[in-house]
Amino acid sequence: MTKLIHGGDIYSHQEKHPGGVVDFSANINPQGLPAGVKDAVIAALDGCANYPDPLCRELTEAIAQSEKLPREYILCGNGASDLIYRLVYAVRPKTAVVTAPAFEEYEQALTAAGCEVRHHLLCEEEDFLLTERILDDLTDDVQLLFLCNPNNPTGQPVQRALLTRILQHCREHNILLALDECFCDFLDEPENHVMNEFLPEYSNLILLRAFTKMYAMAGLRLGYCLCGNRSLLDAMYLCGSTWAVSNLAQAAGVQALREREYLARTKLIVAEERAYLKARLAALGCKVYGSHANYIFFRPHVSRLRERLEVKGYLIRNCENFKGLSGEFCRIAVKSHEDNTALLHAMEEVALCP
Amino acid sequence: MTKLIHGGDIYSHQEKHPGGVVDFSANINPQGLPAGVKDAVIAALDGCANYPDPLCRELTEAIAQSEKLPREYILCGNGASDLIYRLVYAVRPKTAVVTAPAFEEYEQALTAAGCEVRHHLLCEEEDFLLTERILDDLTDDVQLLFLCNPNNPTGQPVQRALLTRILQHCREHNILLALDECFCDFLDEPENHVMNEFLPEYSNLILLRAFTKMYAMAGLRLGYCLCGNRSLLDAMYLCGSTWAVSNLAQAAGVQALREREYLARTKLIVAEERAYLKARLAALGCKVYGSHANYIFFRPHVSRLRERLEVKGYLIRNCENFKGLSGEFCRIAVKSHEDNTALLHAMEEVALCP
Repeated sequence: MTKLIHGGDIYSHQEKHPGGVVDFSANINPQGLPAGVKDAVIAALDGCANYPDPLCRELTEAIAQSEKLPREYILCGNGASDLIYRLVYAVRPKTAVVTAPAFEEYEQALTAAGCEVRHHLLCEEEDFLLTERILDDLTDDVQLLFLCNPNNPTGQPVQRALLTRILQHCREHNILLALDECFCDFLDEPENHVMNEFLPEYSNLILLRAFTKMYAMAGLRLGYCLCGNRSLLDAMYLCGSTWAVSNLAQAAGVQALREREYLARTKLIVAEERAYLKARLAALGCKVYGSHANYIFFRPHVSRLRERLEVKGYLIRNCENFKGLSGEFCRIAVKSHEDNTALLHAMEEVALCP
Repeated sequence: MTKLIHGGDIYSHQEKHPGGVVDFSANINPQGLPAGVKDAVIAALDGCANYPDPLCRELTEAIAQSEKLPREYILCGNGASDLIYRLVYAVRPKTAVVTAPAFEEYEQALTAAGCEVRHHLLCEEEDFLLTERILDDLTDDVQLLFLCNPNNPTGQPVQRALLTRILQHCREHNILLALDECFCDFLDEPENHVMNEFLPEYSNLILLRAFTKMYAMAGLRLGYCLCGNRSLLDAMYLCGSTWAVSNLAQAAGVQALREREYLARTKLIVAEERAYLKARLAALGCKVYGSHANYIFFRPHVSRLRERLEVKGYLIRNCENFKGLSGEFCRIAVKSHEDNTALLHAMEEVALCP
């Protein structure tokens, strides 16, 4: 059976922890599914005998208003990861560049499509920041570049000046830039990071977004992408199931975009708890890098931290299967104050009993 | 925007029919979503903050018991159509054969994967039955054959002796047989049609199944496939999103397999209403072919039947965009007695006002 390499796999631990585990390995909004979204899903259940709208018309309209972009710029998918696969199947690049570390689904999709994957290594000495070194790797034989902003697992955003330079460079070299902005909303000032304004002029730019993390909808599956090149979106539409987005996910997405208060509260909680976790982890002797989104990336204070926390019922992400990283690095989600405090307490304990 | 070619698109008619349309164009169980499944989905909602189980472990176990097959034979997908795409991306056939007419998603997926698609034409003179003529088309340069049993849109089952001959022939010529059994449960004696027993011996056989039609779950998206070749299923797993099957669909599937009474009642209703519709359509002057599943395939008694019924608020499937058919053929779902009677009444009316 295929090996599971991602976070969020609470299901592998049900035997050892029948009472459940506290999952810090997936970066999900600690507020849980908004009550309004839950109601919208229940209301949509009666429509589930029908096929979902393949064009996601109502949802696309709601996203268009929220993103202040024409509907033609939008394609919805069964989670952002569905769109990553559709993208590589539509583009069929021979060679692509991904950073290391980065979300592994890019490379998995590229490999499935038979593409050669080149890794641009991010360095600990540079705090895992993307630098202009990347430009050297964006040569004429490359067709696609995946970037994640802020990056996963490091939580490091890309400087805007560098990002626009990369975008320009990509256009000059006929490289499509797939920019994953799934965690952008958790940054302090997302409006200074999202690249919507470049879409009309740069047809080589495609932005990936998810409802998963911000609206705690990981189990419902919903993502979308934004692109000024409609032919590319049409090709992506044809590269997967016609009815990929369920009725329930469509209804959930429409309602989620109305949940302004939930969004504002989330940003406050995440900013506060992120600062709390970073300070306390540093005090424990962990070395924290980046971590400007809703997850913290760090070199732990003790060895085998993941295994030792798992015994206590806490799942964290050890980063050994991220290319470009050793197992020494860990990632934890920013959760509720209660959960965060409990985890920190457990981390203190494991340091006392080495 | 991409043209919609499938049935079930009630969303394109909301402006003209704000009160809703009666949809005979998608072949969905007229009983609607089972109450127990609805409850299971609502109960699963609180788990939606978590990623779904990528391996669908509980659901796979339930399917294994229901199908009396080992778990290793099973892969779940975001509807059977998700599995069709994963299959063609995993196999990457250069040449494939599909029947004409057949469910269009096979050809759409094959085209997306850059495969040459050859059409085996089914003939009106042969009542659109599959015959041994197909063997001539299964040559050494073919890697994949899609068959649908019973076929969509004709509702014609393949004779078992012929099917086993095709399977044998395919193995001799290194052809993978993808057998879509999504409508098998609606046949009078499904156990005489499903090919489970051949799976252990024939690693070139893969069966497609859906929850969509039998459990009125089209909007929830859930399908699975059965195959004795685990390497193929593992490759398919890697050819699409890791979390394709939502939490809600997994919970719905587990409960659906417990709905024995619903299943038995459905078979009775469909058999009775199918006989009723076939007799009444023939009496109206329509020519009915095959139609042994939960849909009726016929040459109508008047021209432009689809358009004329649409004005009255009834959607039916005209078959002009099925390859190998002209627009003269129509397909309707077997629905409730009330809906079926109302449709027949509308069909009488359109005949009176030509």
